[in-house]
Amino acid sequence: MNRTQKILIAFLALVVIFTGAVISRVWIFKPQSTVKLVKMPAGEYDTEAWGRNYPLEYVSYKKNLETAPSPTGYGGSVKVQKAEMQPELYTNFKGNPFSKDYTEDRGHPYSMDDLRESKRIGPAAKGACITCKTPYIEQAYKEMGWGYASQPLTELMDKAKHPINCANCHDPETMGLRVLNPAFIEAMQRRGINVSKASREEMRSYVCAQCHSEYYFEPGTYKVIFPWDKGLTPQQMYEYYSTKPNGFAQDFIHPDSGVPVLKAQHPDYEEWQNGVHGQFGVSCADCHMPYMRKSGQKYTSHWITSPLKTLNESCSPCHNQGQELLFSQVKAFQDNVWQLQHTAGQKIARAHGAIQKAAGTAAANQTELANARELLRRAQWYWDYVAAANSMGFHNPVQELNTLGQAIDLSNQAIDAANKAAGTNSL
Amino acid sequence: MNRTQKILIAFLALVVIFTGAVISRVWIFKPQSTVKLVKMPAGEYDTEAWGRNYPLEYVSYKKNLETAPSPTGYGGSVKVQKAEMQPELYTNFKGNPFSKDYTEDRGHPYSMDDLRESKRIGPAAKGACITCKTPYIEQAYKEMGWGYASQPLTELMDKAKHPINCANCHDPETMGLRVLNPAFIEAMQRRGINVSKASREEMRSYVCAQCHSEYYFEPGTYKVIFPWDKGLTPQQMYEYYSTKPNGFAQDFIHPDSGVPVLKAQHPDYEEWQNGVHGQFGVSCADCHMPYMRKSGQKYTSHWITSPLKTLNESCSPCHNQGQELLFSQVKAFQDNVWQLQHTAGQKIARAHGAIQKAAGTAAANQTELANARELLRRAQWYWDYVAAANSMGFHNPVQELNTLGQAIDLSNQAIDAANKAAGTNSL
Repeated sequence: MNRTQKILIAFLALVVIFTGAVISRVWIFKPQSTVKLVKMPAGEYDTEAWGRNYPLEYVSYKKNLETAPSPTGYGGSVKVQKAEMQPELYTNFKGNPFSKDYTEDRGHPYSMDDLRESKRIGPAAKGACITCKTPYIEQAYKEMGWGYASQPLTELMDKAKHPINCANCHDPETMGLRVLNPAFIEAMQRRGINVSKASREEMRSYVCAQCHSEYYFEPGTYKVIFPWDKGLTPQQMYEYYSTKPNGFAQDFIHPDSGVPVLKAQHPDYEEWQNGVHGQFGVSCADCHMPYMRKSGQKYTSHWITSPLKTLNESCSPCHNQGQELLFSQVKAFQDNVWQLQHTAGQKIARAHGAIQKAAGTAAANQTELANARELLRRAQWYWDYVAAANSMGFHNPVQELNTLGQAIDLSNQAIDAANKAAGTNSL
Repeated sequence: MNRTQKILIAFLALVVIFTGAVISRVWIFKPQSTVKLVKMPAGEYDTEAWGRNYPLEYVSYKKNLETAPSPTGYGGSVKVQKAEMQPELYTNFKGNPFSKDYTEDRGHPYSMDDLRESKRIGPAAKGACITCKTPYIEQAYKEMGWGYASQPLTELMDKAKHPINCANCHDPETMGLRVLNPAFIEAMQRRGINVSKASREEMRSYVCAQCHSEYYFEPGTYKVIFPWDKGLTPQQMYEYYSTKPNGFAQDFIHPDSGVPVLKAQHPDYEEWQNGVHGQFGVSCADCHMPYMRKSGQKYTSHWITSPLKTLNESCSPCHNQGQELLFSQVKAFQDNVWQLQHTAGQKIARAHGAIQKAAGTAAANQTELANARELLRRAQWYWDYVAAANSMGFHNPVQELNTLGQAIDLSNQAIDAANKAAGTNSL
């Protein structure tokens, strides 16, 4: 064998090795990187039907049935009364159904059960309550427009059957992301945003935003409205409510203080969009629905829960500090928020009492009394914007701590004004 | 030319190209990656002498002479009275020299000038004040031990000559990092940390920590002490001061309220170490003294200022979100902190007045009065821990916002207690 032959043999050996590697990659260890698209019939609202074609997503969705405390001790998916940890809720929501029944949220599969079992829902409850509980909202709105909102809730509940599931966020034909809640679509429209033209990355937050947001019912029609016309911060939403939009003045009037109270409803999207993650383009799904792998196949987790339960998949792709350090920071953020939230809530409870006493004095100064009520209305809104959301401030710790600091200040100002109204000689 | 020759020629051509590339990298475009170590004589405190051997560092150190407002509007290196933005400082530090003269800090080269010009310094001022103003502290402590602290300041100032510079942080023989302030070394020792065994990464924060920290003077000896024995949070340091350590009870007694006030001194290190950057191992120097390049040579910036002025070198190595977004987040953090800081400061000012009035009433309840003073002492410490530091809360926004929220709450509690002391019938 001469030199040329030797070189040729060595070259051929390399070719054989390379080809073998390619073949084994492509044919033998080929990753199942694509899932076959199976179209679902429009109006199919049964998780089981979707789940047969998307088994990995289905199995992860089923994990939403688990009920467990949160890893940090705040929130979680166990149905406990929030007032156990915050007795001030009884005072602050006195005269409103939230003082009777206000539990931590269980997972999406429980949405219809929890609606049915809620002591806040009476026989006069309206269809509007179903908006964020079921994919049936699609059909209801298609058939009745906003008319469904004023129907008796019980009737719609019978028709709805299915809790929040696949169809709430996925187009049955393309599996692309979609939003169903007309209130969200309209609110975005008023802000100049056409949701139907959103990018996939935007949709990865919009599907959550369509329900994890503050809303109110238009008096008379029960139409659901998001108070976003002036912006999404606590201040901007308060300014919006101050105009008594669509004739809406308050959720209830506090029986002790006479304060027209705004009850906040889980403004998770609002908190997030103005926080570091929102501003830096990290979507809700990036953290709450991380990419997972099973047998080489990549899929999106549909177990929508605290990212701390999937810290490695949720946080570590961006934050490489190690699980223990990351966890301790999140816990520290929440501990700091909880302390101010509790302080603000208690001071607000006290302010309701102070205004009640001031109003009961013989020659109460009505101007000061009105001032005190306005201060307390704002204080309670600021506190509840944070307290009603699901992250114990984590979605935007800086904004929420500032908001709670203001709530503490405003509730003290309300007490001062009550003192003035009562003519006490306080310092 | 046969096939073998062709292959050989191609191979030789590759060898020539590769060798050429190596030669050009090593000989022609060789980066000046090493700086020759030039030993300085021990006790050389003149920047100019060091600067001749380390020109890039020297040029960047000279930039500390620039005086400019901060990019966010908070802090900066222009010598303006802080009370211009916060008139509440006049009330809260009444009776203390800080109410007469309390300016924003200029850069390190001005440390001796600013000490000399300060209206807080009277003829009775002691040598302790020089501890963090000059590398001469090394010699003073070597010659006199803590005895230097009780010498007349004027005498030491004449000997000191040089402001904070190279020798404060660099060993003249090895150029390695070192700390000179004995108060820092002792405080760390009491926490079980031997600073002489610190890693380089730790030293990159310790050189700053030796001065950017809270301290007090031991009564009688004027020895400088860091109040760190119970920990570095505002709460832990307050608990430490509550024991009247070494006979130290307060910095001054407020002439209106009679509150024994603790004046906080720039606890920048304390804020940072418990915040996200500190917890995740990002040193002071990583942000404030970023690595720069000139003509291919890498050096450490000695322009110690807001990292926002070197955002690309300071922040972008870890945060890839783009300068505009990063800047707007820092600004948002500081805006939120400033709002609560201002609110807390004003409420504290009011509480001093309330306690004064209560104390002036005929049958003031002394127990409630003492309670009011204790609440206000704590409130003012919490507020000043944030207000006296140099980052407008950025070093640890979550802790500082919580601390300010508590300061607002505590100052209102102090007013309540004053009302009780005065026997007002407040609500």
